[in-house]
Amino acid sequence: MTIRYPSGQQPPNAGRAGQPIVAPHSSSFAKRGMSLEKEINDANRYYLATEQAVIYKKPTPIQLVKVDYPKRSAAVVKEAYFKRPSTTDYNGVYQGYYVDFDAKETRGKLSFPLKNFHQHQVDHFRRCLAQGGVCFAFIRFTTLDLTYLLPASDLIAFWDQQGRGGRKSVPLTTIKDRGFRVKAGLNPVLDYLPALDQLIAANQAKGADHE
Amino acid sequence: MTIRYPSGQQPPNAGRAGQPIVAPHSSSFAKRGMSLEKEINDANRYYLATEQAVIYKKPTPIQLVKVDYPKRSAAVVKEAYFKRPSTTDYNGVYQGYYVDFDAKETRGKLSFPLKNFHQHQVDHFRRCLAQGGVCFAFIRFTTLDLTYLLPASDLIAFWDQQGRGGRKSVPLTTIKDRGFRVKAGLNPVLDYLPALDQLIAANQAKGADHE
Repeated sequence: MTIRYPSGQQPPNAGRAGQPIVAPHSSSFAKRGMSLEKEINDANRYYLATEQAVIYKKPTPIQLVKVDYPKRSAAVVKEAYFKRPSTTDYNGVYQGYYVDFDAKETRGKLSFPLKNFHQHQVDHFRRCLAQGGVCFAFIRFTTLDLTYLLPASDLIAFWDQQGRGGRKSVPLTTIKDRGFRVKAGLNPVLDYLPALDQLIAANQAKGADHE
Repeated sequence: MTIRYPSGQQPPNAGRAGQPIVAPHSSSFAKRGMSLEKEINDANRYYLATEQAVIYKKPTPIQLVKVDYPKRSAAVVKEAYFKRPSTTDYNGVYQGYYVDFDAKETRGKLSFPLKNFHQHQVDHFRRCLAQGGVCFAFIRFTTLDLTYLLPASDLIAFWDQQGRGGRKSVPLTTIKDRGFRVKAGLNPVLDYLPALDQLIAANQAKGADHE
């Protein structure tokens, strides 16, 4: 099946002059996220082209310090620094829902270390949930080749108990129990909308329980 | 009233070393957007702090070419270029709705020139509307000091007839008729949520008509 990308979109692997330079992250775990991130971006491009969802990775925020404006050619950034984002990396709209998530990989086999997340990301999840957003962590256990969507509410519960002297990681058994597995697909390779459908359905069932 | 900003957020006008450098846009109209953009950012910061909405301006996408990683200090971008965004500038979540918009100013007194918009922004609106997003143009007539939220569906209707040899602008009378006026407030100065409430209510009434 040939995908026609919307105007302005580049097909996967069409970066100019080889590999794009990727912004560094403060966490030493950042590199582990490369492959998952690429698969998510490919899936989002596919969902956009097939009109299934409109979800983008946000650009890395940059603090500009020096910009040259040469005559008759494009502006050149000469000095700039990476800023820490205030939000998570991905958001968009899917079937009327505001969707918001971050992607993390771990080599652990028994649990997902909470240090993969930052306070500002958890705070952002909390605010989006309060506004009725669908929020989750996209977690991959690279060694086990297992990928789950863990509802942000579960992540937040573990985050908060950590501050009260609790454990510093979420057990894989909990993620299997509370999360929704993303199974490998063909096109896209990471077909995560079925897992997202399950997460949304579970949210609604939970909401109905409280009524 | 003193606003306590969420962690990581800077209060308005707290940019380091004076005015931040603003990324250039391809349109010569870009400069006119400065003041409206600042007011929207202030309003979004206020809505975030008061837990009324979670709406952010997306960072300008940058194509990195050369980045230095000095030992024991932050990475420095040495060469980079501005990329054209694939989406509109603002999105977020408000009372369960995915909200998506772009802000434009015009000095015109009778109509809003469509050349303020780009094809990719209109395409993005179309895709978000298809997924049930709440999309609109934030339009200010600077000379008249009038600000409106114009539903993206109306903008798209004018955009499409333009391609069929129609007029190249949206008359102010149409914007007054179809749009929702943003009245000046005290805190924030640009209190646009009441107009957004009206826009959402009108969307729902229209949806109900079609059932």
